[in-house]
Amino acid sequence: MNLFDTVQPVVYKDGKVLFLDQTALPLSTKWVEIDSIEACWNAIRALVVRGAPAIGIAVAFGMSIAAMDYHGDDMSAFTSHMKKAHSYLATSRPTAVNLVWALNRVCSRIDATRDVAEAKNAILSEALTIQKEDEDICRNIGVHGITLLRDGMTILTHCNAGALATSRYGTALSAVYVAKERGMNIKVYADETRPLLQGSRLTAYELLASGIDVTLITDSMAAYVMGKGLIDACIVGCDRVAANGDTANKIGTYGVALIAKAHNIPFYVACPTSTIDINTPTGEDIVIEERDASEVLSFMGVASAPSGVKALNPAFDVTPNALISAIITEKGVIRPPYSL
Amino acid sequence: MNLFDTVQPVVYKDGKVLFLDQTALPLSTKWVEIDSIEACWNAIRALVVRGAPAIGIAVAFGMSIAAMDYHGDDMSAFTSHMKKAHSYLATSRPTAVNLVWALNRVCSRIDATRDVAEAKNAILSEALTIQKEDEDICRNIGVHGITLLRDGMTILTHCNAGALATSRYGTALSAVYVAKERGMNIKVYADETRPLLQGSRLTAYELLASGIDVTLITDSMAAYVMGKGLIDACIVGCDRVAANGDTANKIGTYGVALIAKAHNIPFYVACPTSTIDINTPTGEDIVIEERDASEVLSFMGVASAPSGVKALNPAFDVTPNALISAIITEKGVIRPPYSL
Repeated sequence: MNLFDTVQPVVYKDGKVLFLDQTALPLSTKWVEIDSIEACWNAIRALVVRGAPAIGIAVAFGMSIAAMDYHGDDMSAFTSHMKKAHSYLATSRPTAVNLVWALNRVCSRIDATRDVAEAKNAILSEALTIQKEDEDICRNIGVHGITLLRDGMTILTHCNAGALATSRYGTALSAVYVAKERGMNIKVYADETRPLLQGSRLTAYELLASGIDVTLITDSMAAYVMGKGLIDACIVGCDRVAANGDTANKIGTYGVALIAKAHNIPFYVACPTSTIDINTPTGEDIVIEERDASEVLSFMGVASAPSGVKALNPAFDVTPNALISAIITEKGVIRPPYSL
Repeated sequence: MNLFDTVQPVVYKDGKVLFLDQTALPLSTKWVEIDSIEACWNAIRALVVRGAPAIGIAVAFGMSIAAMDYHGDDMSAFTSHMKKAHSYLATSRPTAVNLVWALNRVCSRIDATRDVAEAKNAILSEALTIQKEDEDICRNIGVHGITLLRDGMTILTHCNAGALATSRYGTALSAVYVAKERGMNIKVYADETRPLLQGSRLTAYELLASGIDVTLITDSMAAYVMGKGLIDACIVGCDRVAANGDTANKIGTYGVALIAKAHNIPFYVACPTSTIDINTPTGEDIVIEERDASEVLSFMGVASAPSGVKALNPAFDVTPNALISAIITEKGVIRPPYSL
């Protein structure tokens, strides 16, 4: 099913940059060769690659492609060429913070090099480093996360905070992958995650491709499976953690946390420490993005509601710190009371 | 849009039994003529007609069709023929208690008749009576339900327990319709109700068609809207109430009840007293129908998950009595402790 050992959104192999086409998932596994910065820009804009860490990695390799496209030996012209590539790629997903962060990191390597050949190597090396660092961070989240689990346990997750959003391992799913490396068996129930179905399209796909025992449920079945005693713990990723531990994540997460609390099931948030925003005091300070109603009024492009009906479509909700049993980071497990 | 005056799931007109094809809603309004008990069984199983009271009405007319299909004049053979029809139709939806109740009511009319012709008339008459009684019962549920609401309130409902599930008015939505008759304004948030989307396809359809202010949300947004203070009460229908008040209803209801409890929002179950099964001591005794996984893996023929992935698909869940603020029936409002 997969060209490579593990599910990865961006692969550099034999001098080629390949993106897994996530718009074709879960029905087919297609790899897109990225051979120009235009191809890179288009792929990011079209959501071929998505997830903040994965986008950062994708543009870093895009910069390496841009560097290879310069065929002269004038450092000043090369630097100017790379600045143009930076400005261009920065517009592919204007709101993604990791994107500009990765572009800046790659460009900062040029200054210390003596010629174009060396600069090209430094840029590729930086892209590979960004990818490897992300992999290490994700794997360490799993290494810490697994201390909260025992062999044979079953977790429930919501949305996709897995390998497809990062370089490998993911955040919420990292403990599951680390468990597999160690010969342990952690089963997963995946919420399908309406309206955009990241759970069915992405989480179910990557776990199935990785040989993990995964069962898909609708979001409305979370209470049923917890009530039946099928779930030992919930683990979700997050978009932002406030300084008091309140956590913004995909719409539906708050409901999962309330239901877990009612059943005395631990509810864990997994994220890199870079997602913790100490400048956001509490969840009240997080602005929730309201997306287009059409996502709620249709299902995989098929209209599912009568035309003319109103719909609400908040992209995220905030889970209060009191419902979070622990926050799992690459540096360790943080337990309440949270003072981040 | 509608062949008849009001939204109705089962219509008997000019000697013909017609079911509104609810699987085609909300995109098209199609009527299916039911001309055999096999067609009736298939329609119920395929959810062309659904909702406990509507299923009762549907099988009552199914029995009338079975009666017309008997062409002899031997009362003993006729009775045996009808018993077979009873057993067959009883298997169409195992959880719906109204189904067997309606079948028994129709059959009980046979004993007092002197010949097959009279029995056939009695059976048709009983089906029509069941339908009319249901309309009266539903309206009375609304009359009692409205005592729990005030003008301007907003309710949240799950699945469809409206006009489309009964002969008219519905159960959960009856108070909303009675409020409208009285010039009051009750707004509704409707959970879309995966996997079969009865909320978007049916509830949004019938409320919009009736001029009620309705907002559609995904099931995963129930906690968000309750947390934001947008909801004053939850009202749901049910498939069966056990003697201790435990209630089986569409999958996802239990989660809504837990989330309502966490926000101190009243959670009401609306149902005719016929849905209360004193022979079922508790929710533990209710067998939950497990439906085909394909419903979770796709919608309207469009796959949303990778092929080969497992899925769970319980059609119902059980909400324990402790989470139910009151049960609204045609005879009045029942408050805890429940001893039904």
